[in-house]
Amino acid sequence: MKFKLESTDTTSQARAGTITLDHGIVETPIFMPVGTVATVKGVHQKELKEEINPDIILGNTYHLYLRPQTPILEKAGGIHKFMNWDRNILTDSGGYQVYSLSANRKIKEEGVKFKSHIDGSFHFFTPEKVMEIQRVIGADIIMAFDECTPYPCDYRYAKRSMHMTHRWLDRCINHLEKTPLKYDYQQSFFPIVQGSTYKDLRKESAEYIASVGAEGNAIGGLSVGEPAEEMYEMTEVVTAILPKDKPRYLMGVGTPINILENIALGIDMFDCVMPTRNGRNGMLFTAHGTINIKNKKWEADFSAIDEMNITWVDTAYSKAYLRHLFTVNEMLGRQIATIHNLGFYLWLVREARKHILAGDFSSWKKMMVEQMDKRL
Amino acid sequence: MKFKLESTDTTSQARAGTITLDHGIVETPIFMPVGTVATVKGVHQKELKEEINPDIILGNTYHLYLRPQTPILEKAGGIHKFMNWDRNILTDSGGYQVYSLSANRKIKEEGVKFKSHIDGSFHFFTPEKVMEIQRVIGADIIMAFDECTPYPCDYRYAKRSMHMTHRWLDRCINHLEKTPLKYDYQQSFFPIVQGSTYKDLRKESAEYIASVGAEGNAIGGLSVGEPAEEMYEMTEVVTAILPKDKPRYLMGVGTPINILENIALGIDMFDCVMPTRNGRNGMLFTAHGTINIKNKKWEADFSAIDEMNITWVDTAYSKAYLRHLFTVNEMLGRQIATIHNLGFYLWLVREARKHILAGDFSSWKKMMVEQMDKRL
Ligand SMILES: [Zn+2]
Ligand SMILES: [Zn+2]
Repeated sequence: MKFKLESTDTTSQARAGTITLDHGIVETPIFMPVGTVATVKGVHQKELKEEINPDIILGNTYHLYLRPQTPILEKAGGIHKFMNWDRNILTDSGGYQVYSLSANRKIKEEGVKFKSHIDGSFHFFTPEKVMEIQRVIGADIIMAFDECTPYPCDYRYAKRSMHMTHRWLDRCINHLEKTPLKYDYQQSFFPIVQGSTYKDLRKESAEYIASVGAEGNAIGGLSVGEPAEEMYEMTEVVTAILPKDKPRYLMGVGTPINILENIALGIDMFDCVMPTRNGRNGMLFTAHGTINIKNKKWEADFSAIDEMNITWVDTAYSKAYLRHLFTVNEMLGRQIATIHNLGFYLWLVREARKHILAGDFSSWKKMMVEQMDKRL
Repeated sequence: MKFKLESTDTTSQARAGTITLDHGIVETPIFMPVGTVATVKGVHQKELKEEINPDIILGNTYHLYLRPQTPILEKAGGIHKFMNWDRNILTDSGGYQVYSLSANRKIKEEGVKFKSHIDGSFHFFTPEKVMEIQRVIGADIIMAFDECTPYPCDYRYAKRSMHMTHRWLDRCINHLEKTPLKYDYQQSFFPIVQGSTYKDLRKESAEYIASVGAEGNAIGGLSVGEPAEEMYEMTEVVTAILPKDKPRYLMGVGTPINILENIALGIDMFDCVMPTRNGRNGMLFTAHGTINIKNKKWEADFSAIDEMNITWVDTAYSKAYLRHLFTVNEMLGRQIATIHNLGFYLWLVREARKHILAGDFSSWKKMMVEQMDKRL
């Protein structure tokens, strides 16, 4: 992996860069669509590539481990071949899902025992095992196994957990060195800063993470229910410490406004289920605010979904038609809303990049945040 | 509407023709994908047009009447504009759905009172009302309001019902003459032959239907559970009577084999939910038989879904990947299977047309029926 910082904004911490990986160049800031179980829900790989056009997408280790399971991914020759996606992929470490989806999990120093949310079977994730799983899945960027603390989280728990995450990080790094690559391309490993919403813990964690000298660094444990202001404070503390010459990935964030604010604080990479999940529930993000397309007010509004026409669905279908599809619970409605939202998210980060390079990011961001903070 | 008979097979009753309508030319034999509620489930209009490429699709009057409801379709300027489909559309009369979906329906000479399967509200369909609804929906081909008898059906009921269907036909025709077109294109009206599985009734009905001199004629009340042989017998009786210079539409049929056999008996138009509905359940139709993609045998089969590559999905995804999508209940699986199946159905009728024109339809049909009658 190579990271090139193209430009840093003079009125904020925003950066424009390029990450070179074996499945292509990623222009940052980037938003990574979530392809949980080797599919971005409702979107053909071809549409994703040609219409939404992200340089990298995300897969979830927890889900892929449970289904199709690693032996199938290995036989396929890795996740790229399995799902027919020849651009970059990042896998998370499964930590977040183990804590949020599994009813029955026990966290110990050795690792986490959990019950599958699918069939109730028991599994044990350790830092070592998760590294092996991610080698087999074969993403271009793989993540450390961490504990993602909930919000709120008491200080003592957050501190103890953070230290364990750091010890797990050492185990991940040690084990990864002994675990050869499975396929003919590199994998870059990103450690994860934790520390809940405590500045001193975030600072300590960022320093520890920075010290391991990884190719890129991530911030976890945010966007878990805390107010946006607290999230921004934590990002600020952490980005001040993380090395400037490595990409920074803020995990699981967020709304379009969250993304712009965090870009301003020096974040380069984002992922979130919001554009896809909210889309499937009839919520559309646009440059002029959000639309609840299920609302009766759109019933006879035959105007285009979004005049901006970022993706072809925006003008191919009317608001009234899309509302109808949601009213009758038709798949096509969810497909259209997903493409629209992902198209918009990718447009937003690309536009941010352009404005960073042009030198007017802060004023553009201010205008966009005001514009997007509306319900249409 | 203009119908041109291009060629009649010398060893069967199969015909190749062209129907010219205001939204383009329909090459027959044709299969019409079912777009129940102004969407072919899981398929973008653009994909439908560019990949599957039917000259005409079908919409259901019953469903469209309930949602989005006719005032919305009228405000949109008709169904073509509402759903952004500029090729031909045929609407059924709602009869079939009233009898099959509504728990609570009462059939009288005047019409049918039924309870909506959506909200339990009561509605009354008469031949006159259904003609008005179809004027507003605005399909290119509209159907008579009939009673579709179940299978089995006792002779006396079938006979009484058929006579009522004939009287309803007269009312449809009378009312349609008094109901002006809503939009700037023509609508062609097709009456429907009934008579259950009784040859004498089918004959009588076909003679009555032929006598009204409509632009095209349909056969209803088949593919409702009767053995295929009985269906073919009825088709044969009816096509011997219906005029040769008008298109013949066999409603709700069927499997790929049913379609070829009925083409051989002189049918020009088909519709069926089978490729879409069975596709959503993981059943794929191919030239070499059917595939239940959920079967464990495909778990590690990384070969293309279908080497024939009729639509791009066939080689873009592997059997193992598609099986995985069904295992995890992902939308994309249903989308892929639907495109595959519709692509295959359209390929099949186009191929049939080519062989009719080439003069070797019967031998080709024999080979195809044998080939397709397998489970892979
Ligand atoms: Zn999120
Ligand atoms: Zn059918």
